[in-house]
Amino acid sequence: MEAMKAILIICDGMADRPVKSLGYKTPLEVAKKPNMDRIASEGICGMMYAIAPGIPPGSDTAHLAILGYDPYQVYTGRGPFEAAGAGLELQPGDIAFRANYASVNENLVVTDRRAGRIQTPSELEEAVKQIKLPVKFLFKNTTGHRAVLVLRGRGLSAAVGDTDPHEVGKKVLKAEALDRTAAARRTARIVNLFTKKVYQVLHHHPLNQQRRKEGLPPANMVLLRGAGVVPHLEPLEKRLGIKAACVAATALIKGVCKLAGMEVVEVEGATGNVNTNLRGKIEATVKALETNDLVLLHIKAFDELGHDGKTEEKVKFIETVDAHLEKLWNKADFLVLTSDHTTPVEFKEHAGDPVPVALVGPGVRKDDVKSFDERSCARGGLGYIRGPELLPILANLMGKMHKFGA
Amino acid sequence: MEAMKAILIICDGMADRPVKSLGYKTPLEVAKKPNMDRIASEGICGMMYAIAPGIPPGSDTAHLAILGYDPYQVYTGRGPFEAAGAGLELQPGDIAFRANYASVNENLVVTDRRAGRIQTPSELEEAVKQIKLPVKFLFKNTTGHRAVLVLRGRGLSAAVGDTDPHEVGKKVLKAEALDRTAAARRTARIVNLFTKKVYQVLHHHPLNQQRRKEGLPPANMVLLRGAGVVPHLEPLEKRLGIKAACVAATALIKGVCKLAGMEVVEVEGATGNVNTNLRGKIEATVKALETNDLVLLHIKAFDELGHDGKTEEKVKFIETVDAHLEKLWNKADFLVLTSDHTTPVEFKEHAGDPVPVALVGPGVRKDDVKSFDERSCARGGLGYIRGPELLPILANLMGKMHKFGA
Repeated sequence: MEAMKAILIICDGMADRPVKSLGYKTPLEVAKKPNMDRIASEGICGMMYAIAPGIPPGSDTAHLAILGYDPYQVYTGRGPFEAAGAGLELQPGDIAFRANYASVNENLVVTDRRAGRIQTPSELEEAVKQIKLPVKFLFKNTTGHRAVLVLRGRGLSAAVGDTDPHEVGKKVLKAEALDRTAAARRTARIVNLFTKKVYQVLHHHPLNQQRRKEGLPPANMVLLRGAGVVPHLEPLEKRLGIKAACVAATALIKGVCKLAGMEVVEVEGATGNVNTNLRGKIEATVKALETNDLVLLHIKAFDELGHDGKTEEKVKFIETVDAHLEKLWNKADFLVLTSDHTTPVEFKEHAGDPVPVALVGPGVRKDDVKSFDERSCARGGLGYIRGPELLPILANLMGKMHKFGA
Repeated sequence: MEAMKAILIICDGMADRPVKSLGYKTPLEVAKKPNMDRIASEGICGMMYAIAPGIPPGSDTAHLAILGYDPYQVYTGRGPFEAAGAGLELQPGDIAFRANYASVNENLVVTDRRAGRIQTPSELEEAVKQIKLPVKFLFKNTTGHRAVLVLRGRGLSAAVGDTDPHEVGKKVLKAEALDRTAAARRTARIVNLFTKKVYQVLHHHPLNQQRRKEGLPPANMVLLRGAGVVPHLEPLEKRLGIKAACVAATALIKGVCKLAGMEVVEVEGATGNVNTNLRGKIEATVKALETNDLVLLHIKAFDELGHDGKTEEKVKFIETVDAHLEKLWNKADFLVLTSDHTTPVEFKEHAGDPVPVALVGPGVRKDDVKSFDERSCARGGLGYIRGPELLPILANLMGKMHKFGA
C-alpha cells in the first residue's frame, strides 16, 4: 500500500454559537461554504472537545491536545511555545518568557508598554544579548515590540511571576517566586537581575538617545510574562509514525508544532489576519505534502473576528477561506476540517463549546451530514471525541497504527 | 427478582469499512441477517472502541477490555493467554511463551519452522517435560505443531526476546534480556538452557529417527516467542457479581476468559474457521446458561475472512451465523451482539475503527435503529462506549450493580 497523506485544516476559533443578529444561526450555518460542506457530505462528521467539555482552550493548549499531548501535563505557560515559534532552538527544561520592549521613567514606572510600538529593534536585541547573567540565556526579537527570553541551566523554575505590570503608570514588577523551591527563588533573582541590567544597557543606548531626539518614547525596558518550562514532547513521528509539517502564521502555533517535532513552513505574507496570504498558505500546504504524511494548515483570523465581535466579517471570512479550500481537493488522501475552539462573536472570548469536525478519505464511513456546522455535525457518525483522539482516528485510517495485542 | 441471564455474542473481526466491491457498503450492510437486525430493532444500539479511538486491538487485548480489564496494565504478551487457553493451571507471575516444534540442522539453523506440520506429538511432549531446569516449568502441546511453555518461580521476567528467528535459514536465536534487571538476564539464561536441552532430548528421539526414515523433517527443536507474565485478573464474578462462561474455539480467547475466572466450555468440532460447529456452540451456550449468569459466545471466522480479504465469504458467513442466532432468541433475558474489532477486507488487518454494539432485554431503552451495522448503530441510543463500559452497562440492567453512595 502506498503511503497515505492527509491535510488537517484547523480554523482557529471558527466555530461559534447561535447569534441573535443571524436569526439564532451560527456563522457556519449561514455562510456559503460549498467546499467545507463537501468534506462533511462525502465524509464522516462529529463534534470535538479539544480538551474537555466546558473547558475553554487557548489556541496553544487546544493544538497541543489535537496533536495528542495532555496540556495539563506539558503546558506551564505560553513562553516556550512563543520562543519555539520564534525559531529559537530550545531544550526540554529551558525556562521561556514572552517579552516586550517598553518605556519606563527613572523610577521604573511604565510610561508605554509597547515603547511606541517600536519595530523589531535589532540594535537593542544585540545590546540585551551582551548582558551577563549567572545562567545561559537566549533573547530574540519576534514581531513589532515583542521578543522572547529563554533561561537555560540547572536549578531553574517556571514558577516565577511576571515583571510586566500589565498597566501604564505602574512600576515594573519585581519577579516573585511562586512556590517555595530554591529553584523558583533563584529564577526570580535572575529575572530581577535581568531587569536591572536591561535598563542599564538600554536606557542610554544610542538608539534610544536618537528616539528621544525624535520625540519617540525610549525602548529602555524589557517586560517579561508567561514563564513556562519547555516540555519534552515525544515527536509525532515517533508516536504515530506520521511525518508532519505545519503551515501557520502565528508564532504560538508554529511553536507548538515545532516542539511536537513538526516541520514549520514559512509562507511570505502569512499574517494571521483577514488579509493573510491564503493562496500562499494553500500552495505551501500542497508542497509540504510532497515530503510529509500530514500537513496541518492553521488559519487564524476567525479567532480575531470572534474576539472583536465582528459577526458579518466572520461569516465573510468563512466564505473566503472556503473558496480557497477547493484547491486542496484531491491533493491528499484525507482531508480533516475542524476548529481548535469556539470564539463566539457575542462572547468575544474563547469558549469551551464543542466544535465540528469532518473527515473524508478512503475507508471512511460516510454519514448523512451534509453541512459543516455545529449542529449538523452533532448528528454525525463520529460522535463526540476529544482532541487527543483525532490523530489516532486519522492515523488508523491511514494504516499507520500498530496493533496492540495478537 | 429472579436472577437474570445474558448472552454476549462477540463476532471476531466482523465489523468492517465501506467496501468498493460492495458499492461502498460494509459486509454487515449488505448481508441478510434478520436475527442480528432483530437484536438491533428491539434493543438499543451504539458504537464501541474496545480499547480507544484509532487503536487496532488484538483479539486478546480487545476481549480483556470488553471483560473490563485495562490491557495496558495486564497484557505483556500472548503467551499467558495461549497457555491458559491450552488448559494449563497458571499462577500470577508465571512467565509463559508460545512454542512450536521446528526442524533444525546440526548448526541450529531452522530448516522448517513447523517441523513438517507435525501433529501434537505426545511422545515429544513427554520428552521435553523430562528436561531439568533450575526453575519449575510446564510444557504442553496445543494444536498441530504448537505448544506452550511456562516458567514458574521467583526472580523471573517476561522481558526476554524470542528464540524463534521467524524465518527459515536463520539460526535459533539466543534469548536476550530486554531490560537490565537480574530477573530478565536470569530468565534469558534459563530459556537458552531450555533450547540446548530440548535439542539434546529431541534430536535423537526415536520418533525423530522414525521420521527421518520416512523422509519427514525431525521435530528436534522448540522455538519460543511472545513471552508474557501471567497477570492477576480480579475474577468477573467478584468484580461484577456475574458468574460467567465462555464458548470459544480459539485458545487465545479461552485463555483470556479462563484467566478472568470464567468457565471454559469445550465444544466438539469448534474449529474457529467457517466450518466450525456453530450448532454445537449455540447449544453449548444455552446449556452453559443453566449454571451461569452470562455466557460469552465467541465466533472467530469473520476475522480470518477479513485477513484474507474474502469479501463475499465474509458476507455469507454473517448470514450463516445469523441463521444460527435465531436459536438464542428467548433463551436469555439479554442478548448483546458486538465485534471485538474490525478486520476490514480491504485492509486485511485488525483496525482501530469503532464497532457496532446492540443490546436487547428488559428495561432497555429501545431506539430507532433497525439494522445491526456500523453506520446504523452510530445513530443509536447508546452512543459511543469503550470496551470496559459494556459489562457494567449490562450488569446494571441485570440488576447486578451495587449502588455507590447513599
